[in-house]
Amino acid sequence: MTEISALAPEELERLRADLQKRYAAFCKRGLSLDITRGKPSPEQLDLSQGLLAALGEDKIYAENGADCRNYGGLDGLPEARELFAAYMGVEPEEIVVGGNSSLNLMYDTFMRALVHGVDQDCGPWSRQPALKFLCPSPGYDRHFSICEHLGIEMIPVPMTEDGPDMDVVESLAAKDEAVKGIWCVPVYSNPTGAVYADATVLRLARMTTRAADFRIFYDNAYAVHHFGEGPPRIKNLLEACKEAGHPERAFLFGSTSKITFPGAGLAMMAGSTTNMAWVRDNMFFQTIGPDKLNQLRHVRFFGDLDGIYRHMEKHAAIVRTRFDAVQEILERELAGKGVATWTRPKGGYFVSFDAPDGCARTVVRMASEAGVKLTPAGSTYPLKRDPRDNNIRIAPTFAGVDDVRTAVEVLAVCTQIAAIDQLTT
Amino acid sequence: MTEISALAPEELERLRADLQKRYAAFCKRGLSLDITRGKPSPEQLDLSQGLLAALGEDKIYAENGADCRNYGGLDGLPEARELFAAYMGVEPEEIVVGGNSSLNLMYDTFMRALVHGVDQDCGPWSRQPALKFLCPSPGYDRHFSICEHLGIEMIPVPMTEDGPDMDVVESLAAKDEAVKGIWCVPVYSNPTGAVYADATVLRLARMTTRAADFRIFYDNAYAVHHFGEGPPRIKNLLEACKEAGHPERAFLFGSTSKITFPGAGLAMMAGSTTNMAWVRDNMFFQTIGPDKLNQLRHVRFFGDLDGIYRHMEKHAAIVRTRFDAVQEILERELAGKGVATWTRPKGGYFVSFDAPDGCARTVVRMASEAGVKLTPAGSTYPLKRDPRDNNIRIAPTFAGVDDVRTAVEVLAVCTQIAAIDQLTT
Repeated sequence: MTEISALAPEELERLRADLQKRYAAFCKRGLSLDITRGKPSPEQLDLSQGLLAALGEDKIYAENGADCRNYGGLDGLPEARELFAAYMGVEPEEIVVGGNSSLNLMYDTFMRALVHGVDQDCGPWSRQPALKFLCPSPGYDRHFSICEHLGIEMIPVPMTEDGPDMDVVESLAAKDEAVKGIWCVPVYSNPTGAVYADATVLRLARMTTRAADFRIFYDNAYAVHHFGEGPPRIKNLLEACKEAGHPERAFLFGSTSKITFPGAGLAMMAGSTTNMAWVRDNMFFQTIGPDKLNQLRHVRFFGDLDGIYRHMEKHAAIVRTRFDAVQEILERELAGKGVATWTRPKGGYFVSFDAPDGCARTVVRMASEAGVKLTPAGSTYPLKRDPRDNNIRIAPTFAGVDDVRTAVEVLAVCTQIAAIDQLTT
Repeated sequence: MTEISALAPEELERLRADLQKRYAAFCKRGLSLDITRGKPSPEQLDLSQGLLAALGEDKIYAENGADCRNYGGLDGLPEARELFAAYMGVEPEEIVVGGNSSLNLMYDTFMRALVHGVDQDCGPWSRQPALKFLCPSPGYDRHFSICEHLGIEMIPVPMTEDGPDMDVVESLAAKDEAVKGIWCVPVYSNPTGAVYADATVLRLARMTTRAADFRIFYDNAYAVHHFGEGPPRIKNLLEACKEAGHPERAFLFGSTSKITFPGAGLAMMAGSTTNMAWVRDNMFFQTIGPDKLNQLRHVRFFGDLDGIYRHMEKHAAIVRTRFDAVQEILERELAGKGVATWTRPKGGYFVSFDAPDGCARTVVRMASEAGVKLTPAGSTYPLKRDPRDNNIRIAPTFAGVDDVRTAVEVLAVCTQIAAIDQLTT
């Protein structure tokens, strides 16, 4: 395959005409495809249908005899805390199992940080003259939205295959007291699919931070969401932070949103016992406690951590077909043409696709006009400003395999047209 | 029955000796009774057992076809919003149906008020030089705890049979810009059982407030929780606020915590469309959405508002037996003795009991030593400081009828002993 930039003008013109014909044909088909959000497919949801019948009659009591239908238990059902402590790689006293949304736990943590502060000695973040957060990018739009909403300045940090560029992170954290933390998705990062290297985790734990109350918001949303090679093993951040003498630095988050039911699953926050005491002390004023029945459902449904692993193998078998389709079409359409690069993740919910600089918005618009909805260009960067306007997030799980093929083909055609137009103007 | 204060010294001594004998006998029985919290009894929870089997197989779709197992729907399932809009006396666009805890919705509202403000023109509450809240007392400890936790000064306002003393409320709200709102439990108030008179609701809606962003936190936790005379009809606060030209003044809260399952029910917030837009705008950054499956369970289980009313009749039949027992024992032990007064609510979860001034802490301690746990004295006042040290909250729903009898008898004996000791020292 010849790179497009090496084609003679008449070859380029012919290719452009062919692509335009294909694009026009797609436009005529009246497609309505959506690969914008990381949503499980209905087939994946069916895997957890047993949850709905996990309770009933006298199956409403916790192991300690508590009636899970009634009040009580601020920080989660003991057996749920035990199960998800194992899942998160922490001790049961280092976890709080809450409601249905880990985003909510992250947001609440920011609100507490603003109003009360995360460290008694440092005071509320809202009293600081400036607040900044390190944002490995491309990253998760909902993380960035929280910072934007709360007036926290975001500093993009380049992502590598091993996680954020730690030279940049260390330098920024060490020199500026306003830098209060960093967003991380350590496993199958959104959207690149990168898995943090052990060295990255160790450097995060050990680095010097100018702010004494620096916090790592470690959103382990895809901890066991592999498709094919088993759950990845990465260094335990909390342990590393303890060993480095910074036990309070790590706020860990997780959820079953993409294990059981998004919106009707469980969310959890973990960290040092000091941090969890701080969380509980704040939660006391916020709620009487979480939905213990839903926690009991999950414990009954999985049994133990192996039950979660077995369950994720079933997800993997479904999800893999979509990701294979993405890779197959991208390879077929774009390999060797020098117009795009993309990631080849082994898990998670996304493929990160880089069109030529300055083309992402055009590609997304063209795809949309052909009936294929892509995540808006820019979404993967703070303030939705992709400095190179090249990154597009592909979220292939929700659609059927054939729809994924078609949607990615449209993406590939649009990318080539945009690339040629950029070359020839 | 002669008032204790009118007894001759030797009669008083004889009565004291009799009471002491009864008290000693209770102490010997090794009682372990708890009438501290407003918790439904297991029999009440059994009424909602059908919820657990309300979903399953293909019963997971909303009326609009949405798969309730997946993401989507920030402000609640449309049919849940419709049902609970009827319940709250508002339009579907005036309600947000959320997670399991109305306390959480109230707390979140305070956090938003502090960080962002409730009114664009007025700015964040945290930037104000002082913040004060009106606290009708005796009232609900969890309301007061939120204010205490967030550094908001609480001003106690006397409760009457018609709600808060509105002369006091109007005067405080009119003169001080720092007074940002008031806590209200309009129906079967916690703990007195008072139901707000129409005049109270109208005055709340119409009064002049110095703060332009004054808000009524209207916790309608017991809206349909009568025991015997049907759901009370009180004036609609939101309508009254609209008519008075203060549509944004009312924040309404409700939940099914004491309708279905505490902790596994639904919570809701209602108010003007402007206020609900503000809530949604904030919620967008906080969560992808609530547990729609649990909302669907509730909709399926109740069908419509009449379904809720019929369900509450079953609660009433159970709860009434406890409240009748409280009244029977208090009448038998204390009527005419001039040592205590108490409320005779027609719904809700509490009886408010007034011992002689300065005796509540003694009574609660004595009862505790006899194995009867009462809500700590002072709990019903801001900062847990009951200025007269006389108020005790009785929460009789969770215990069995016989246990309620025994517990209230202990309370009555302890009250008389404390009253005599106060008279004779």
